Amino acid sequence: MEQRQIKRSTMAQIAKEAGVSTTTVSKVLNQLPGVGAQTRARIQQLIEQHDYIQNHAARHLRKGQSGLIDLVIMRLEGGYDLGIMHGVQDVLEESGHRLVIFATHENEDTELLWLRRLLDRSTDGVLLLLPYERLGIANALMEQGIPFVSIGDRNEPTTAFPTIGSTIWLGGYTATEYLISLGHRRIGIITGPLHLTTSRARLAGYREALERAGIPIDPALICEGNYLLGDGVQQTYSLLDQPEPPTAIFAGNDAQAAGVYQALYQRNIHIPDAMSVIGFDDVMYSAQMSPPLTTIHQPLAEMGKMAATMLLRLIAGQQLESNHVELSTSLVVRASCAPPRPGPLTEK
Amino acid sequence: MEQRQIKRSTMAQIAKEAGVSTTTVSKVLNQLPGVGAQTRARIQQLIEQHDYIQNHAARHLRKGQSGLIDLVIMRLEGGYDLGIMHGVQDVLEESGHRLVIFATHENEDTELLWLRRLLDRSTDGVLLLLPYERLGIANALMEQGIPFVSIGDRNEPTTAFPTIGSTIWLGGYTATEYLISLGHRRIGIITGPLHLTTSRARLAGYREALERAGIPIDPALICEGNYLLGDGVQQTYSLLDQPEPPTAIFAGNDAQAAGVYQALYQRNIHIPDAMSVIGFDDVMYSAQMSPPLTTIHQPLAEMGKMAATMLLRLIAGQQLESNHVELSTSLVVRASCAPPRPGPLTEK
Repeated sequence: MEQRQIKRSTMAQIAKEAGVSTTTVSKVLNQLPGVGAQTRARIQQLIEQHDYIQNHAARHLRKGQSGLIDLVIMRLEGGYDLGIMHGVQDVLEESGHRLVIFATHENEDTELLWLRRLLDRSTDGVLLLLPYERLGIANALMEQGIPFVSIGDRNEPTTAFPTIGSTIWLGGYTATEYLISLGHRRIGIITGPLHLTTSRARLAGYREALERAGIPIDPALICEGNYLLGDGVQQTYSLLDQPEPPTAIFAGNDAQAAGVYQALYQRNIHIPDAMSVIGFDDVMYSAQMSPPLTTIHQPLAEMGKMAATMLLRLIAGQQLESNHVELSTSLVVRASCAPPRPGPLTEK
Repeated sequence: MEQRQIKRSTMAQIAKEAGVSTTTVSKVLNQLPGVGAQTRARIQQLIEQHDYIQNHAARHLRKGQSGLIDLVIMRLEGGYDLGIMHGVQDVLEESGHRLVIFATHENEDTELLWLRRLLDRSTDGVLLLLPYERLGIANALMEQGIPFVSIGDRNEPTTAFPTIGSTIWLGGYTATEYLISLGHRRIGIITGPLHLTTSRARLAGYREALERAGIPIDPALICEGNYLLGDGVQQTYSLLDQPEPPTAIFAGNDAQAAGVYQALYQRNIHIPDAMSVIGFDDVMYSAQMSPPLTTIHQPLAEMGKMAATMLLRLIAGQQLESNHVELSTSLVVRASCAPPRPGPLTEK
């Protein structure tokens, strides 16, 4: 118990400094009677001074607080996750919490391992950054009364727990509207997996912009990807190989946009002269692409900050104004879009 | 002390189950005499069963272990850091430790804040992933007897603490030798800051390859950068504006290579037909570039794994065979290098 944690040498030193026996120190430590009030106070002060509770973490635990916030993410790969992490750290740097990271690598067994370990140990709260709502994890956390906030994709209109996202539909609309404003009429879209609400939200925004502009929707221009570079490459080839290829491609996310770039490079099609490309996310490498990618900015750092702030409020026992918050997406114009050019794609 | 942590209700329940008074339970808890051996054993068993030590984290602390490994990094931005983190997590996933992340954002005050908080709390060990050796931090950790391993750049030939790196000099040599093997004779290099040993190691490898091939070194082809994209752009312009520009550029790292790409795109110079580009690091977006970047692979995940493994051995009180380990760099051929083409750079 506690005594074991205190070094014998420390007890002896306290006893010496207080001019008492180690037995007396032990009595004070164990809140046993038989020590005068003044001596007790003096010993207690010395104990404090010697900081026998070795560190603040131990004190935190005593108060039922670990000082730890756990962030569980899908992959340690993308600019998306890093952007969120950045915002989370900014808030925790202020609050003094430590950020514990765990990546599940899209493996459900690993996810369960993490959950089991988490419940086994102490955490003040959890941030979930998983590709869609993992209701199993959410339910387990709710059952255990562990505060948590889910960031990013939300697959159901309402949930019983706090979530934070961004205005995806509006982003899809804005991207498409921008291409239309440049004069494009045949705009290809490479979506994410269409079982995800956020993929469907992008597509719905695309349709809305075309409909408003009175441009008929051509199903041949709608391709489904998996948000990975390879899908961007393959779907671009299939768009280019159509009898009437598009003059612009809305890539669904920036990883797919990198794939669109590679396919166009292979076919020697110049961006933006012969083909406009617009991404979605605005991850860290988007500005590093050649040409720098015009894209829809997701406020990743701000989402991370907001999620961490909401979580700290939950931990403090405060009520949230809203169970779901969406931060605004916005258009970032760089150099990958231009008005359409008549004639063949590879003409220079 | 300990008693405060045990709920009165739990003590009463243990007393009831053992058929003794709460005073007897208290005596056992506090290792005081006056309880028979058998009763004591029974009570101790019940205490275990009731798991009055509320969680494993508390037990860890009691054993002087927090179950936490702290990783301090410079920025939450690069593929470099993510690659290392990936390897670290793989090892900790096995060992069951939790990974605590902190980014200093190149701010020394933030670094000190982190250090103060770390010493104030519990950690099993620390991984330092800072741009060069932060001797202040290393000294503080050594003083406190906290095990740590430093990853990446090493600025002194020998250190008093464990470090892990990669064969940078060999990487610089290999990159340059590869360009020479393609037929290049005028090879530009954009180094990192030349006060860093790892920047000088790349440059020394470059010189060695040229000297072995009997190619004179032209100081006009050696530019100093800061490992950032913007330096890649600017130094490429200055290389192109020379009377006799190079036919290939060794970019120092992949971020600078992205800058080289942007400058060449601006000047309408085709990669690799008119200009070969080689990077260094092989971060996650290198394969996503157009064309995919040929580069020197740093075994980032393996370095992370090795560092975590070394740290766990230090924590377990084991001796390391060597205080410094270097893992091998290697050439990754993608699509950004080709034999030099005679004639003007923009001819197609």
